[in-house]
Amino acid sequence: MIDFIILAHKAHTRPVFKLNDLTNGRTDLLCRCINSALFLSHDLRRDVNIHLIHMDNAKAEPVESIESTETVEPSESVIVRFSGENVRYLNPDERSAGSLILKALEKECYKYEIESTKGVYIRKGCFAQLLDEFKERNVIYLREDGMDIRDMDLDVNPAIFDNPVFVLGDHTGVSEQEEALLQDAKAQTISLGPISLHSDHCIILIHNEIDRFRAIHGN
Amino acid sequence: MIDFIILAHKAHTRPVFKLNDLTNGRTDLLCRCINSALFLSHDLRRDVNIHLIHMDNAKAEPVESIESTETVEPSESVIVRFSGENVRYLNPDERSAGSLILKALEKECYKYEIESTKGVYIRKGCFAQLLDEFKERNVIYLREDGMDIRDMDLDVNPAIFDNPVFVLGDHTGVSEQEEALLQDAKAQTISLGPISLHSDHCIILIHNEIDRFRAIHGN
Repeated sequence: MIDFIILAHKAHTRPVFKLNDLTNGRTDLLCRCINSALFLSHDLRRDVNIHLIHMDNAKAEPVESIESTETVEPSESVIVRFSGENVRYLNPDERSAGSLILKALEKECYKYEIESTKGVYIRKGCFAQLLDEFKERNVIYLREDGMDIRDMDLDVNPAIFDNPVFVLGDHTGVSEQEEALLQDAKAQTISLGPISLHSDHCIILIHNEIDRFRAIHGN
Repeated sequence: MIDFIILAHKAHTRPVFKLNDLTNGRTDLLCRCINSALFLSHDLRRDVNIHLIHMDNAKAEPVESIESTETVEPSESVIVRFSGENVRYLNPDERSAGSLILKALEKECYKYEIESTKGVYIRKGCFAQLLDEFKERNVIYLREDGMDIRDMDLDVNPAIFDNPVFVLGDHTGVSEQEEALLQDAKAQTISLGPISLHSDHCIILIHNEIDRFRAIHGN
């Protein structure tokens, strides 16, 4: 199994965006990550989950009015999961993935997962909780100053591709608090080349490394 | 300079699709190829052109009515070019690229390029013509049974990344006639790994190989 976690700081936790403007909350970015994580040429990657942590941080920004004395509580984040094994009704275009995200956000949210459409699930949850659930797994964090994925000696350390969990930021990156959580989780830090890339492009490069590794070493 | 040619067999040659349905003519696929070809994390790849050959082959299919005795002429294909150096108003989402394609198709088309929006150009033209224009360049054709890009001895043959022109099919692949043209053009055939991938995903892998090569050998 391969899991991807996307830290979507601006993504809405309620169905307030329109399919005709997926840039609202940068849903478009999440749609591209779903495409990269799950699509093969004529198939889906069945052994992949992608977890989108919708944080809607815009809501948590300080109230500008000086008259306000109320503390603005961060909105509760939600986790939308797409399962490559079970997902249906997903096409490669952004609007298709956006539509399934929207249907998930329309559901009432609980601490446990509910299925919104076949193979798409939603629940209340945050990054710390997800990392805790993956504490027995091999957590890998993408950062430009990490070790180059091609420089790792995989014969010595094949576990890097053994049920890995990859954590990627959105267009705002990864916060200091999230980095601290990753450090506590003993996440390995890797990079994918000399140039900084979008998260959906990084996912393609990760899959290619694992595809090549598995072609030689088996699953 | 790096050029990508996308053989878009079903793509419309006239502005007949809507931004709310980019799957019409598989414009969505072209939008993702544009994103992959041009976007870096916080910049554009300035030394890249992507040429989308819109063939609208659906129009060329035989007329079903048995009363018809007219031959249906294939519609004249058009080439839409996005220049990484000059393009403006392009965001990473599919709808943004789709909007610029639509604006290009709204223009009257000639044998020579006209600029539809900043850095986006359109003209009448076909694959054979484009290959002829690139006859002094290093044309590379992506095919699953090609030599693995990582197995090529680039120290011996660095020209592979010297002003390359990459040719990729759409969801219908590459026709026999197009393959014959590529053979005549002495195109090299390469592959990118053990699994068949979408064209936009292939572009990401190609860029990563070139980025890595340039980081070591310079541009």
